[in-house]
Amino acid sequence: MNKQAFIIIDMENGFINPESAQCIRMAAQTVNRCAKAAEAARMRGIPVIFVNRIYRKSGVDVEHTRYRAWYDGGRAMSEDCEPVIDSNNPAGLSPQENDMIIIKPRFSAFFMTELDLILRRLGIDTVILTGTTTPNCIRTTCYDAISLDYNVVVIDDCCSSQTEEIQRANMFDMKNIGAHIITADEFVSDNYEIQYDSLAVCREEVRNGI
Amino acid sequence: MNKQAFIIIDMENGFINPESAQCIRMAAQTVNRCAKAAEAARMRGIPVIFVNRIYRKSGVDVEHTRYRAWYDGGRAMSEDCEPVIDSNNPAGLSPQENDMIIIKPRFSAFFMTELDLILRRLGIDTVILTGTTTPNCIRTTCYDAISLDYNVVVIDDCCSSQTEEIQRANMFDMKNIGAHIITADEFVSDNYEIQYDSLAVCREEVRNGI
Repeated sequence: MNKQAFIIIDMENGFINPESAQCIRMAAQTVNRCAKAAEAARMRGIPVIFVNRIYRKSGVDVEHTRYRAWYDGGRAMSEDCEPVIDSNNPAGLSPQENDMIIIKPRFSAFFMTELDLILRRLGIDTVILTGTTTPNCIRTTCYDAISLDYNVVVIDDCCSSQTEEIQRANMFDMKNIGAHIITADEFVSDNYEIQYDSLAVCREEVRNGI
Repeated sequence: MNKQAFIIIDMENGFINPESAQCIRMAAQTVNRCAKAAEAARMRGIPVIFVNRIYRKSGVDVEHTRYRAWYDGGRAMSEDCEPVIDSNNPAGLSPQENDMIIIKPRFSAFFMTELDLILRRLGIDTVILTGTTTPNCIRTTCYDAISLDYNVVVIDDCCSSQTEEIQRANMFDMKNIGAHIITADEFVSDNYEIQYDSLAVCREEVRNGI
């Protein structure tokens, strides 16, 4: 039986609302599905972790390539911005009691955060990824997770991109490196289980010499 | 004037030769262009850094999602494999005197390597990325480099993928997060200079408040 964690990345007003310069076009339509999948995780005792972006109002922690657009666009997800583009998770997808919240400074949920330490402490071997945006924060988290020896499950229709074409190209690449791509319906189903535990298989074979 | 480093990722026999199970289809055709661009870098006094994969023959350091295919395919880039799929850089693209070599255990050239420490010591602000494979090792290095506050230049036709479609989709995403995508001809040209120093601009604006 895999020990899983359910991770929701950057599902914040500043990335979801059309008013925001940082809006990801397909994100709003995934809010309800993410909420439903997160609830299924909680019912199974799978820890739910929100990984959010919060920028300082000076912008000293914004990626240098994004700084100008972020500044000119109203400094979304900082103290100074309008409520409609703030760092809160949207109504219906906010952290519940016992969920965890991690603030990340860059794309990957692992990059200079305590996520790996928390997952180790909990004995997690499999991360389930949801949120936005697929080509940036979901994908970098996926690659870091595989690099750190986690199995990775990506719930395709709980993730979002600016276009369907970007979404497809990125799911293709992540599948190619060994991520399991599933749908929200599959995850919510009573029959859900991880398709192939490549970590356990690899560990066994390395230990024994195939 | 930017302080640059020229980085060549995973251009090894095991990723280039068609005999290898890990062969990247478009890699062989980039060898000469990489060599020419690296030589232009050396002539300008830009440090050249080879970042290579070398696996242990037990496979304990192979990504768990790749372990089986790697093992069954002849354990490329390890002590045990045939010379044609070893970890050497191909003829015509081997490290020259004063070039540096770094061994990396995962996709990104920054992931648990000394690359960032070396770049800091040298005062580098801009990394020029070449090598293979575009969706995995080039792209993760690009995202980590931007996360670590480097300007990123990717030489499109010195990088390679399994298909042209994958190459295009990944260049598109990297351009979107602020990488400069150029060609080998542009880099080799006497007129070459980095197009936009977003790091310097951002630093100045953050310091002064725009």
